[in-house]
Amino acid sequence: MNKATLYQQLAPEARHEKGLSRLNQLICLLILLASITAILETEPMLRAMAPGLFKVLEAMFVCAFMIEYLLRLYSIGEDPRYRGFRGRLRYMFTFWALVDLIAILPFFLGFMTHNNAFLLRLLRLARMLRLARLGRFSQAWVSLADALKSRSHELLLSAGVAGLLLLFSSCCLYVVEAAAQPEAFGSVPRALWWSIATLTTVGYGDVTPITALGKVFAGLTAVAGIGIIAMPTGILAAAFSDALQKKSSDAEK
Amino acid sequence: MNKATLYQQLAPEARHEKGLSRLNQLICLLILLASITAILETEPMLRAMAPGLFKVLEAMFVCAFMIEYLLRLYSIGEDPRYRGFRGRLRYMFTFWALVDLIAILPFFLGFMTHNNAFLLRLLRLARMLRLARLGRFSQAWVSLADALKSRSHELLLSAGVAGLLLLFSSCCLYVVEAAAQPEAFGSVPRALWWSIATLTTVGYGDVTPITALGKVFAGLTAVAGIGIIAMPTGILAAAFSDALQKKSSDAEK
Amino acid sequence: MNKATLYQQLAPEARHEKGLSRLNQLICLLILLASITAILETEPMLRAMAPGLFKVLEAMFVCAFMIEYLLRLYSIGEDPRYRGFRGRLRYMFTFWALVDLIAILPFFLGFMTHNNAFLLRLLRLARMLRLARLGRFSQAWVSLADALKSRSHELLLSAGVAGLLLLFSSCCLYVVEAAAQPEAFGSVPRALWWSIATLTTVGYGDVTPITALGKVFAGLTAVAGIGIIAMPTGILAAAFSDALQKKSSDAEK
Amino acid sequence: MNKATLYQQLAPEARHEKGLSRLNQLICLLILLASITAILETEPMLRAMAPGLFKVLEAMFVCAFMIEYLLRLYSIGEDPRYRGFRGRLRYMFTFWALVDLIAILPFFLGFMTHNNAFLLRLLRLARMLRLARLGRFSQAWVSLADALKSRSHELLLSAGVAGLLLLFSSCCLYVVEAAAQPEAFGSVPRALWWSIATLTTVGYGDVTPITALGKVFAGLTAVAGIGIIAMPTGILAAAFSDALQKKSSDAEK
Repeated sequence: MNKATLYQQLAPEARHEKGLSRLNQLICLLILLASITAILETEPMLRAMAPGLFKVLEAMFVCAFMIEYLLRLYSIGEDPRYRGFRGRLRYMFTFWALVDLIAILPFFLGFMTHNNAFLLRLLRLARMLRLARLGRFSQAWVSLADALKSRSHELLLSAGVAGLLLLFSSCCLYVVEAAAQPEAFGSVPRALWWSIATLTTVGYGDVTPITALGKVFAGLTAVAGIGIIAMPTGILAAAFSDALQKKSSDAEK
Repeated sequence: MNKATLYQQLAPEARHEKGLSRLNQLICLLILLASITAILETEPMLRAMAPGLFKVLEAMFVCAFMIEYLLRLYSIGEDPRYRGFRGRLRYMFTFWALVDLIAILPFFLGFMTHNNAFLLRLLRLARMLRLARLGRFSQAWVSLADALKSRSHELLLSAGVAGLLLLFSSCCLYVVEAAAQPEAFGSVPRALWWSIATLTTVGYGDVTPITALGKVFAGLTAVAGIGIIAMPTGILAAAFSDALQKKSSDAEK
Repeated sequence: MNKATLYQQLAPEARHEKGLSRLNQLICLLILLASITAILETEPMLRAMAPGLFKVLEAMFVCAFMIEYLLRLYSIGEDPRYRGFRGRLRYMFTFWALVDLIAILPFFLGFMTHNNAFLLRLLRLARMLRLARLGRFSQAWVSLADALKSRSHELLLSAGVAGLLLLFSSCCLYVVEAAAQPEAFGSVPRALWWSIATLTTVGYGDVTPITALGKVFAGLTAVAGIGIIAMPTGILAAAFSDALQKKSSDAEK
Repeated sequence: MNKATLYQQLAPEARHEKGLSRLNQLICLLILLASITAILETEPMLRAMAPGLFKVLEAMFVCAFMIEYLLRLYSIGEDPRYRGFRGRLRYMFTFWALVDLIAILPFFLGFMTHNNAFLLRLLRLARMLRLARLGRFSQAWVSLADALKSRSHELLLSAGVAGLLLLFSSCCLYVVEAAAQPEAFGSVPRALWWSIATLTTVGYGDVTPITALGKVFAGLTAVAGIGIIAMPTGILAAAFSDALQKKSSDAEK
């Protein structure tokens, strides 16, 4: 396989036909498999059942991604912008090339953090970032982001209203409940935990007001929570409805 | 009653008038009664009160459905496609004929799984599948499915966003909470259980973060949950609104 | 005050001006006060603080409502339909006259159920039915009911889908969780309690699956719950949007 | 800096250019910092770490706000309405001047309530009211309030329906559950706490029905809760959609 064919197989923007090339389809599959492996590896029970398996799999995936990285670096020379040694160096600092590098690095850092449980967990999380590499192959999320951006002003405003309500309700419960439950409502930041759970209607129930006055304020907060959900939903519904009508009126012309 | 009349009574598509025939109305009623009986039979307290009743009822329902099945097989000869022995054999492998068969089979399988509690429960669940037979008599769900299908692209995209958020929030809580609560947050699949309960705003409260950092990430997850609910709602509202306007503009023409 | 003036004061339909007459405003206020009193009376702590007060208040409200009832009966003679003794008898069996009677009866029945706690609570609830009398004075709920009725077909369909999902998810959890938690998931009706709490995203958390398979099905149920909320919301949003546009296009003509 | 320049720097309405002046930007920043300090001060752990810091910071913020207040009072003379001593006195009783005063007062009241924990918490809450001062600098919330006001009739109606459902469901559970759980359902006001948590789909789970009949009514309440959320969301979606279309049709003209 020569350099030009390889370039067309690897770079989605160089391809004339629709859809992904065979090689990129394989890479997408590898990314998904590597992510699922990384998720399952976190479970101690599965690690205990097959101690070596996950290490071998991880090494294989990293190998594959390293080969892919090197092939990309080699074939990118077809692009006039990244020709020669200095061009390749410039390519290595583009956004997607850095994302590709991040997919490989955690493996090598893993040898250094052998004994720190927290750093080890953080590295496992870093492997999940490989999923971001899929963004290179799809532009579908762009249209959704546009719809959200077109109403960003209203959404920000309703977020601001939600934030003030959050602060206000946690202040109220701090004033009336702090004496009865100092552990859960002893300060505004502590009361915020309850406030978020209530205003988003999640309602864990690990912390609930026990005084009569606290229950009255909590009830009002819960009712306000409906508005907090109804506002962004209404704004988004209007945005999607508008985007739909524009598309159909464009089609008529 | 001759074969032609029977066929018109049994096959909804052969009927010229609107609505269901008397015989099919009776069959629908039997299906509903059989389902309710199957639901109530699962309750040990009711089984203890009337040990033999449920067995007798089940036998009666299966008898009725068997007679119906044989009558359908006999009368389907009126349809030129399923004439003769080989036509009937072909009919037996159509979708709805198989569904009808499934409604009868669990009864006979019941004698074989006498002693296995899990298989017995599974068979009871299979009886509930009889409700699917009602689908033969109604086409109402088709319009709803169409409305969903017309916006399947956006709905899939928002499902993808929801999936990534689910994965991301469970990864975050795995990193910060695994040390404090290894049982509930000791791996990403375990943290997913908490993540789903929070992002869908169900909020059981059987598992909640206890570290300060865990609460901060949990709060952000709960707020993101509003968006997870608002997006499909907005998309569906726009779809229904669009379907409504098309219908009224069609009526004007 | 003569009979004709009294009739115009009492019957909203006989009044030419807009709004409620002074007498009816007073009656509405009395109904609200009587309801609040009935609510507060149920609290044992308040009953202990003022043992006689609530009995006196209740007697006063019943007196007032009896006088109102008799005045309505007397003045209704102005309406040609209810003239004379037989006309009044016919009026006594109209819907709103029966509602008025129901507002008085619990007081007299109270003497008979002195010792039965359950019946006493039921009678207290009956007093709350007085609020239904306010329906006579307002027609605002008619427009909301119309909006709901115009989309009743879709709403019923989505209720049917919700019902099937409810049944299906409780069947699934009955099959996989009955062995581990016979008390909470030992039958489909028992599993329904968990199922409703999850699909409506209430999520009490008093009953949660503990097996791995149960958690997988519960997670899918929770995600389906978003659709259960999104569908009626979308249908209603479309209905309200449609009603709004009709009104504004009518105004343009 | 002379009086005229100061006036233009302080009064947003006197400024010809768009956006806030440098001085007002600084004041906004000070308000935000003062609020965050007030929130963090409520946490005993942070107070213990830096006992004097919060008092010094609070004194500094109050100093700054006092200087700002005096400068506003001095420069307002540029406005012909508030010229002279009597004009300034009149200005002191305008809405925003009173809000500014409230931002300073809690500091001086703090010396009097030294020993009462509840009053001290109330004063800390009062400091949070400083955030209201930001309202002077932004008119963004006006458009959102207008959108809500345009559909206030429908929103009030759905709030009324929600209120009646709330009352009705708590009455039902009072009747059927009071005997089994007198502490949680012993009166209608007590049952209201459960009712609000269920109808808003918060679902803390601290109080749940345990009788079979109570669970049936609770299930119906939870299902009704979907409608309670769907109605205001639908109304708001229609309102935002309408506001959007009006704006775009105005732009076309």
